[in-house]
Amino acid sequence: MVVVGLDPGLRSTGYAVVAGSPPGLVVREVGVLRPGAPDLAGQLRDLYREATALMREARPRWVVLEDVFSHPQHPRTAILMGHVRGVLYLAAAELEAPVRALAPAEVKQAVCGNGRASKAQVQAALRACLGLQGDLDAHAADALALAATVLVRSGFPLRAPVVAR
Amino acid sequence: MVVVGLDPGLRSTGYAVVAGSPPGLVVREVGVLRPGAPDLAGQLRDLYREATALMREARPRWVVLEDVFSHPQHPRTAILMGHVRGVLYLAAAELEAPVRALAPAEVKQAVCGNGRASKAQVQAALRACLGLQGDLDAHAADALALAATVLVRSGFPLRAPVVAR
Repeated sequence: MVVVGLDPGLRSTGYAVVAGSPPGLVVREVGVLRPGAPDLAGQLRDLYREATALMREARPRWVVLEDVFSHPQHPRTAILMGHVRGVLYLAAAELEAPVRALAPAEVKQAVCGNGRASKAQVQAALRACLGLQGDLDAHAADALALAATVLVRSGFPLRAPVVAR
Repeated sequence: MVVVGLDPGLRSTGYAVVAGSPPGLVVREVGVLRPGAPDLAGQLRDLYREATALMREARPRWVVLEDVFSHPQHPRTAILMGHVRGVLYLAAAELEAPVRALAPAEVKQAVCGNGRASKAQVQAALRACLGLQGDLDAHAADALALAATVLVRSGFPLRAPVVAR
């Protein structure tokens, strides 16, 4: 079971391709898409093409984004984000991959067991459990947390069981 | 010179295809796109396909939408509208049609000569000048006003000159 997490930002969109593979999770790819076009229409076109290529390769069971209504305090940003989300939904729909949207508290609960955990705690838990090295872009980390949440909820444990030696 | 006006709504998107044709404007098509899919992803996919077909046929010099930041008082609606706008921008970008966004006051100024005109005044002016019959969906009327604005600003008069007999 493969899940693609996506976290759209104004200049870049984080992505993560994670597989549920007993006994746990395998991060296949994690990174950032940065459309280079100077205008909004061109950026959306570039992002659409890159997201389509990513999903076509990953063949996800689910595509998951953060619930956009979580940030009503920044309406201007949220509206622009809506444009980006629109083309990501479209890319998923064209490939017949169903889309889920999760609230931040759902992600924190699944990854840390605490719906009020901090972003830093979520990232630390993911790093420890998935064996990630080096710095991770903030959008990429959020995309990874989203993908991990769907898999944890589907019964793939984030922390692989300790094997007795 | 052909302009496509688009006015996205939650359930339907108004469109108008208007040509600047001396001495005035010719409405080629005006109506509403209503994606039938039950979910957001499917609606965006349907709308994208319909808007692409419309633009491919019209071959517009400009695609014009209302500036989305005109409605910050309804952030939730504006965010959803952002999704719809995203796929409309994408459809235009894929066909290499440039997109313009206009504020409501710019439309009122161009159509009525008064940036504070009411919606009813704008519609009445369009009806009278373009010889429209019958009821017009509110989104379709807004799309028509947007397209007319770009043409009026480009030197095509909304009201054809009275010819002496």
